[in-house]
Amino acid sequence: MSGEEVQISFSELIRKKRDGEQLSEEEVHFFVRAVKERTIQDCQIGAMLMAMWQRGMVPKETLALTREMMWSGELLHWPEEWRGVVVDKHSTGGVGDKVSLPLAPALAACGCKIPMISGRGLAHTGGTLDKLESVPGFNIHQGPEQIKRILDDIGCCIIGQSETLVPADKVLYAIRDATSTVDSIPLITGSVISKKGAESLFALVLDVKFGKSALYKDINSARKLAESLVTVGNKLGICTGAVLSRMDNPIGQCIGNSVEVMEAIECLKGRGPSDLKELVMVLGGYLLWMCGKSDTLDSGKERIGKTLDNGEALVKFQAMLEAQGVQPDTAHLLCSGDQDYFKVLRRAQHQVELEAESEGTVLAINGMPLAEVLNALGAGRTQAGAQINHSIGAELLVSVGRHVNKGDPWIRIHYETPALTQKQKVFLQGALVIGSSSEVDDSPLVSEFILPK
Amino acid sequence: MSGEEVQISFSELIRKKRDGEQLSEEEVHFFVRAVKERTIQDCQIGAMLMAMWQRGMVPKETLALTREMMWSGELLHWPEEWRGVVVDKHSTGGVGDKVSLPLAPALAACGCKIPMISGRGLAHTGGTLDKLESVPGFNIHQGPEQIKRILDDIGCCIIGQSETLVPADKVLYAIRDATSTVDSIPLITGSVISKKGAESLFALVLDVKFGKSALYKDINSARKLAESLVTVGNKLGICTGAVLSRMDNPIGQCIGNSVEVMEAIECLKGRGPSDLKELVMVLGGYLLWMCGKSDTLDSGKERIGKTLDNGEALVKFQAMLEAQGVQPDTAHLLCSGDQDYFKVLRRAQHQVELEAESEGTVLAINGMPLAEVLNALGAGRTQAGAQINHSIGAELLVSVGRHVNKGDPWIRIHYETPALTQKQKVFLQGALVIGSSSEVDDSPLVSEFILPK
Repeated sequence: MSGEEVQISFSELIRKKRDGEQLSEEEVHFFVRAVKERTIQDCQIGAMLMAMWQRGMVPKETLALTREMMWSGELLHWPEEWRGVVVDKHSTGGVGDKVSLPLAPALAACGCKIPMISGRGLAHTGGTLDKLESVPGFNIHQGPEQIKRILDDIGCCIIGQSETLVPADKVLYAIRDATSTVDSIPLITGSVISKKGAESLFALVLDVKFGKSALYKDINSARKLAESLVTVGNKLGICTGAVLSRMDNPIGQCIGNSVEVMEAIECLKGRGPSDLKELVMVLGGYLLWMCGKSDTLDSGKERIGKTLDNGEALVKFQAMLEAQGVQPDTAHLLCSGDQDYFKVLRRAQHQVELEAESEGTVLAINGMPLAEVLNALGAGRTQAGAQINHSIGAELLVSVGRHVNKGDPWIRIHYETPALTQKQKVFLQGALVIGSSSEVDDSPLVSEFILPK
Repeated sequence: MSGEEVQISFSELIRKKRDGEQLSEEEVHFFVRAVKERTIQDCQIGAMLMAMWQRGMVPKETLALTREMMWSGELLHWPEEWRGVVVDKHSTGGVGDKVSLPLAPALAACGCKIPMISGRGLAHTGGTLDKLESVPGFNIHQGPEQIKRILDDIGCCIIGQSETLVPADKVLYAIRDATSTVDSIPLITGSVISKKGAESLFALVLDVKFGKSALYKDINSARKLAESLVTVGNKLGICTGAVLSRMDNPIGQCIGNSVEVMEAIECLKGRGPSDLKELVMVLGGYLLWMCGKSDTLDSGKERIGKTLDNGEALVKFQAMLEAQGVQPDTAHLLCSGDQDYFKVLRRAQHQVELEAESEGTVLAINGMPLAEVLNALGAGRTQAGAQINHSIGAELLVSVGRHVNKGDPWIRIHYETPALTQKQKVFLQGALVIGSSSEVDDSPLVSEFILPK
């Protein structure tokens, strides 16, 4: 923008959006800059976000919002020779979602560069950074030069957002959280794509979840968000695609921080649960196809699967741990043939197993009650910035479609202080849904692909 | 409320209203208390007000909001013997609305007690307090004991809102102004009736305006607001009625501060414009009827008219000026037979008259352009707390329905610094609407009465 500008009043801007009118590019610019510079009152930001939530935004406005947010801070820059290989993934998140941990090294093993900026957990949502911090020494804070060096040497890093990247999002996100305006498609689009845009990506894949354990219960709402993310991503010059994936049960068998790292490393060793491996292969394969490293999605999937089975991805993961501060012998122990991860990761003092209360086929394991109880036991945060206990978690001992007898143990809870209460045990028992084998829902995990446009 | 309360989260409260759900009495209590004590973030207040604006409130919620706001501060208390005679008026405001100035003393002359708490002007809306402060020495700050003494001695006072009365409204009003959430029926109801409720009134009359120069352009919207105000007022134990009055042209011939005081005193001397006198008589008569001092509305009107014609109201006004700090000889000069008010009130340094640009019948004089230009010349505020120049104003030299010739002066502008520009003159000329005598709209000033229920 030039120095001379028409003066626009914040209250008039709010009035326009309040009445469902469209904001011009200049007005969106004016709003985002004021948010970043804190020249607009907090009450006005809260009112504007609520008006945006209520009235929505047309694609042109969402694009302007995302672009202005992206431009509110610094952008990362990459060497010319990385053109076409810098990629990343974003997921709308879900209980037990540790996909990023095997995915980034698997892509690095295929020659991609993955500057993965992740978040911490809040409420029932786990955070990739929290999971990695259960590995002693892992440092999520890396400056632009360190990131470049790690990508040059290894190909992937998983880091926290720096102060200089998309500062407008930091302000807006905190206020959205306080004002119940998180789940708005234009606001989610602005927040997600502005951060990915600041990473100067070539390609981006989005995992938009729907189902009982996801933000969106039905596929149509998930598709709307995915369409918005894909449209805005592509308009900002990132080759962006999305998958709509079913989220009725937790991903994998482990929920918590230490235990999810264990499960992710199992996946990197070519083992681990099949749903986790499938997601890693689909999302990674999609990215390989988008950046022209595979001719088809299926050959991309195969290639990712191979890096998991032949240990190439594991090598990258071990190198990434070391590059981000983990002692070499610690990284080696985790990535060796030895499966006793508790030699490195902290194990909670107490374990208890709950038993199935009836016989039948496991139809579902509801993620929300599990996440809520684990959160209350200290695995997650009730407010931003709070400490968590990485050792708290749960391992599912059964999976959907399997037969259980009454009295079979179905879940192992790792806990310390506070202790698991009788009330929480009852609540957890409600998460296990048992019925007859004919009722099992065997719909595929990934329902739909939204292609770049 | 008892000390022990269920913890409610502000974001959950906002979410409920965001989704159009009703808030319980307890939730409204929790919100208003947090607003008063500033334990809720400003961004959350802004978002909640926008959600209330978008989703509205059912009468039960509006009543709870108003009651909790009223209880957020001290209430005024009156001697037992005043039971049934403490009354007040509220108007939604309009250009040239100086009704309060003759009305309060006229009611006092009829034996009522009027503890009239008024406001200052903001933007194009004039404020009763600003008008009175153009009288040298007039003091709008009076504590509860002084108010009681003035009402005991004289019967009326016109004062500013104290810090201790309805503190929640002060916070909410400032945020509504900044967030474009002023014009919401439940929020207006909460603000207006909570303040009148804190005055511990027996009866209240509301002047809800509609038309070209009012907030509501059509009578149906004005009726909706009036119904809400009347319903909530009565539920809080105040005998509340409303009139819907037409506001296509300014009230009276004078707009500004000093000049409106002059016109109000003319009305108190049994002269002045007929529309002003009619409004004073109708609103005063309605109150006399509501508190049983007249058997009918018409006899109430007559009684008020008599106090204007026989000087009884003027005596009360003069006594009120003295009781609120005006020197006795100043008050005497204003209220004597002498019509040269500029001996006491400050006269602007410059006057200019504009001439009609064509011949015909005056069909309308649009209040908004007049108010905007006078505001720009210094008669009003562009932001709260700013200084104003009481001498700036305008006198209309013609009235609706009268014939004018081309070149006849139709308005006299009083100005100082900044000077009246050519552009402002052109804008002002647009306010005078001339046509043929058959087009004159002679609808009555007061269109409808909303009775207490």
